[in-house]
Amino acid sequence: MPQLRKNPVTREWVIIASERAKRPCDFFHGEKLRGSLPLYSASCPFCPGNEHMTPPAILAYRHNDGTAGPDGPGWWIRVVPNLYPALAIEGGLGKVGLGLYDLMNGVGAHEVIIETPEHNKTFATMSEQQVADIIWAYRDRYLDLKRDRRFEYILIFRNFGETAGASLEHPHSQLIATPIVPIEATEELEGAARYYDFHDRCAFCDMVHQELDTGERLVLENEYFVAFEPFAAKYPFETWIVPKTHDPNFADMSKEEVGGFARAIRDCMARMALCLNQPPYNFTLLTAPLQMEGGKTSQTYHWHLKILPRLTVEAGFEKGSGIFINVVPPEQAAQALRDAVAAPAPPIPQESVAV
Amino acid sequence: MPQLRKNPVTREWVIIASERAKRPCDFFHGEKLRGSLPLYSASCPFCPGNEHMTPPAILAYRHNDGTAGPDGPGWWIRVVPNLYPALAIEGGLGKVGLGLYDLMNGVGAHEVIIETPEHNKTFATMSEQQVADIIWAYRDRYLDLKRDRRFEYILIFRNFGETAGASLEHPHSQLIATPIVPIEATEELEGAARYYDFHDRCAFCDMVHQELDTGERLVLENEYFVAFEPFAAKYPFETWIVPKTHDPNFADMSKEEVGGFARAIRDCMARMALCLNQPPYNFTLLTAPLQMEGGKTSQTYHWHLKILPRLTVEAGFEKGSGIFINVVPPEQAAQALRDAVAAPAPPIPQESVAV
Repeated sequence: MPQLRKNPVTREWVIIASERAKRPCDFFHGEKLRGSLPLYSASCPFCPGNEHMTPPAILAYRHNDGTAGPDGPGWWIRVVPNLYPALAIEGGLGKVGLGLYDLMNGVGAHEVIIETPEHNKTFATMSEQQVADIIWAYRDRYLDLKRDRRFEYILIFRNFGETAGASLEHPHSQLIATPIVPIEATEELEGAARYYDFHDRCAFCDMVHQELDTGERLVLENEYFVAFEPFAAKYPFETWIVPKTHDPNFADMSKEEVGGFARAIRDCMARMALCLNQPPYNFTLLTAPLQMEGGKTSQTYHWHLKILPRLTVEAGFEKGSGIFINVVPPEQAAQALRDAVAAPAPPIPQESVAV
Repeated sequence: MPQLRKNPVTREWVIIASERAKRPCDFFHGEKLRGSLPLYSASCPFCPGNEHMTPPAILAYRHNDGTAGPDGPGWWIRVVPNLYPALAIEGGLGKVGLGLYDLMNGVGAHEVIIETPEHNKTFATMSEQQVADIIWAYRDRYLDLKRDRRFEYILIFRNFGETAGASLEHPHSQLIATPIVPIEATEELEGAARYYDFHDRCAFCDMVHQELDTGERLVLENEYFVAFEPFAAKYPFETWIVPKTHDPNFADMSKEEVGGFARAIRDCMARMALCLNQPPYNFTLLTAPLQMEGGKTSQTYHWHLKILPRLTVEAGFEKGSGIFINVVPPEQAAQALRDAVAAPAPPIPQESVAV
């Protein structure tokens, strides 16, 4: 018998229909394996030596030899504006009504975080230190863009694999700053506030406690973070990484916590790569809106990262109802990910210095 | 400069970023053309003669020669239970809480409307009468399932092409009855009620008036229906077909109106097929919930059909924000669809008699 399960925050229902499922790890995917990519690709705009193929860097973490500019050699993380931005950085909002419709200029920021010089790295094969530095780069860009009062939200996300919308192979994340709070964030914020109003507790703190308590959907736990399959997972192997300590904003992480977050990401990704053969996925970092801090949101909202493997196709039912059909029960996915043995981390590379 | 546009009902924003666009009709799609499919496929469970490959029919429109049962020859529309249902028809709801989570049995109905005996037909090449009979079949099944008080909503939808989630080539739609009101319907119902509370008018009636008035997003109009590209279209060439007369429920259509609806669907699909080379698409029929009629919903909600071509990939930004990036401005898509000359309707086939 299929199940209907409800997301306690957004009130979305999903159908867990394991009768339609393959065995959890039979979702092997046919995309080109990362392992077979070259270390360097001469035509890749994100590979070292091709810095001229991107707009000038906004931020680079690089070895400071005092001679190269921010677009010179020696970087291990580079952030550049997206060459084909979805939103434009210049201009005012120009809000206007057209009869019953509302319109504004598509003002925002769209940046690419080039995560490593190595064309064929994945989160599973990067060092923890490299993943931590990617998180620091997210945070640096977040804090800088936050000062622009036109922006209300910053979404950090990653597309891996063609099916998940990645148009370039080279490891990268993206960041889009929007002049509105996106509906997905609004639904979570409002839902978490409803939950708090009723229970006087944070919904995400409650989830962390229940998932640690029952353990049946748990993927991993470290000192600062817990990773689990959400009870009402929309996607097979959907995985959330949630800080154990309540905080609305990812940018509040201490250095120790950044390390724990990097460890959790790397470990989840390594398990997923092993279990699902490098699945295409998106991840999205959900955090508090820029202009709402200090208010009630700080009590009711709790930031988290969602990893969404893209193993099945959304069809008319999902589009029309918003009810996703998930063919792998989260408990089975969690078991499969717990059973997958993560690859050992590569040795720690040389010191990381932001320039 | 990209634009941000807001859906006046659901408050969802979309980015209209035509700088990233190809020309509107350059979204030609590589899937196998319907024209190249055979009229009959021996291995297709929906082709005539293979009725034993599906569960027994729930409904058949067929030539009544008095000898064949409902699964015998001579049908032109057949409705059967889905062999791999997402929800199970038997059993109670068994609603239960698990700590902070809510769970119920996946009870519902999942049916397939086999739209024609001919394996290679499309809505663009069917007769208007055939499309009208498909709508009558939707309505017959809707009215029958409505009597089951476990169900709160019935979603009728269609998947065309692999990218849009169709696993079988043979023309078919589907219907899923759910014991909950899906979140997409809830968002529309609540949004339409908000709009009505403020304006004392139906949002969809207002849209119909404004679209007919400006004409810039209009695709076609007949006596009873208007088809237009919504102002805040999420998808390139997203098209809505909306009745001119306010009604919450599609099952209230008169015979004349069913004819007008069939004509509008057929005409839109023919234009889309010409303009976009048989694009993969979903359509979803949004109507009032089953158990809410007669109440305020009848004033505030207005049923409609959404056609969603699946020409682009949803990536991490869409998943994390709910903000879709649409690379074809709705005004350009409407122009392209207006310019496409629809194929003439095939001659009307023999009389349609429901058995």
